[in-house]
Amino acid sequence: MATYRMVVAYDGAPFHGFARQPDVETVQGTIETALRKVLGAPVVTSAAGRTDAGVHALGQVMSFNSDGGLDPDSLMLRLNSMCGPVIAILAVEEAPAGFDARFSASARTYEYGIFTRQVPDPFARHTTWHFPYPLDRELMAKAASSMLGEHAFDSFGRVEEGRSPVRRVESIEIEHDGDLTTIRITADSFIQQMVRSIVGTLVQVGTGKTPPDEMDRILHARDRARAGPVAPPHGLFLVSVEYPEELV
Amino acid sequence: MATYRMVVAYDGAPFHGFARQPDVETVQGTIETALRKVLGAPVVTSAAGRTDAGVHALGQVMSFNSDGGLDPDSLMLRLNSMCGPVIAILAVEEAPAGFDARFSASARTYEYGIFTRQVPDPFARHTTWHFPYPLDRELMAKAASSMLGEHAFDSFGRVEEGRSPVRRVESIEIEHDGDLTTIRITADSFIQQMVRSIVGTLVQVGTGKTPPDEMDRILHARDRARAGPVAPPHGLFLVSVEYPEELV
Repeated sequence: MATYRMVVAYDGAPFHGFARQPDVETVQGTIETALRKVLGAPVVTSAAGRTDAGVHALGQVMSFNSDGGLDPDSLMLRLNSMCGPVIAILAVEEAPAGFDARFSASARTYEYGIFTRQVPDPFARHTTWHFPYPLDRELMAKAASSMLGEHAFDSFGRVEEGRSPVRRVESIEIEHDGDLTTIRITADSFIQQMVRSIVGTLVQVGTGKTPPDEMDRILHARDRARAGPVAPPHGLFLVSVEYPEELV
Repeated sequence: MATYRMVVAYDGAPFHGFARQPDVETVQGTIETALRKVLGAPVVTSAAGRTDAGVHALGQVMSFNSDGGLDPDSLMLRLNSMCGPVIAILAVEEAPAGFDARFSASARTYEYGIFTRQVPDPFARHTTWHFPYPLDRELMAKAASSMLGEHAFDSFGRVEEGRSPVRRVESIEIEHDGDLTTIRITADSFIQQMVRSIVGTLVQVGTGKTPPDEMDRILHARDRARAGPVAPPHGLFLVSVEYPEELV
């Protein structure tokens, strides 16, 4: 038995989300079907981020176990010919024993793009949220800083019954480049809809609707009804995943 | 009567080309229908480039005549709400009398993107040609230089019966940035499929299939069968149009 790691990019638009589901097309289902054809046996994959329907990835990480002796380069070639061009397998390599893309990950980074020009950009419409109003940078930066550190994030997402809502946000950066505002968040992991819920609330702060110090109160209220609307999925990208040095 | 000029961007994918046609959706048809609704009378537009089906624009220029007194800003807003987000009206302004987007233009610039990485990029697949083989920069640059100046371009495109195939290519640049090769051509005007036909031939040169000095012989043969295949439309963008100073 050997463990393999893959780096995967995908356009989330055509899929019913990442996670395998019966009867609908998902990213994981598409890749597992291809792996099964190539390897001649069912394969179960693990992934760093179970992205929601419509969410994209530039650097999703997946792992699986298989009998040894696979040639990673030819596997990559065959997977791409079956899954591309909507899904791109950017790397396949053997990983240290015990590596698991989901449970070994120490941090995930997501980016969310907001296009604020009044007139939409025909070429950014599938990968950014068109929100045609000015956003105040300083208010947003001030509000964002409340997210840093370890908190129960129930106000900003969904947690399965009995699971912890506590996550550690390592960094949150907001970049403004012309009409494009990009919010980049790194955390140990995320609860469902957490980035999009934080983005939706930060946008309300940016328009002046919500005062920046309200962000901290929303966080501590631990009540989803207090947060802003969830930003649409097509502006969100899983960009990279970090692992402890000994597993790289 | 006043003359108006518009700058327009569009994703060419959903349209049957730029030029108005009965019974099918085109970029010009969509914009003229919107103009007619806003202005309450049929409007005929002129455009700098009649882009083929699937070809995109970042800076197409169009013009039309109408009774004076239009407010360009509110016209732009209304057109965008009707035509967006696939078509974006980036500017509307009154133009000097006699301005015609097509006949006044002194030069057009097109860009063609080729993505050469073996694995396709899910996010570039609608806007670049995926050609997963290495391209030799020096061979391409040498071949491209044959295009400069005034020539009959029948080998690289279609000309209507009785029309001149002579065009003046002012510049042709090839940029390589990682896996992306961009070919940028400026000419007084272009015959149909000219950029894509030149690109298809330059790619054959870049792979070593066609020697670079063959480019000059293909040009002077004035025979379409001599050129390489026409590159696919989705890698091509009309990026900008130039006008004489007195009309700007």
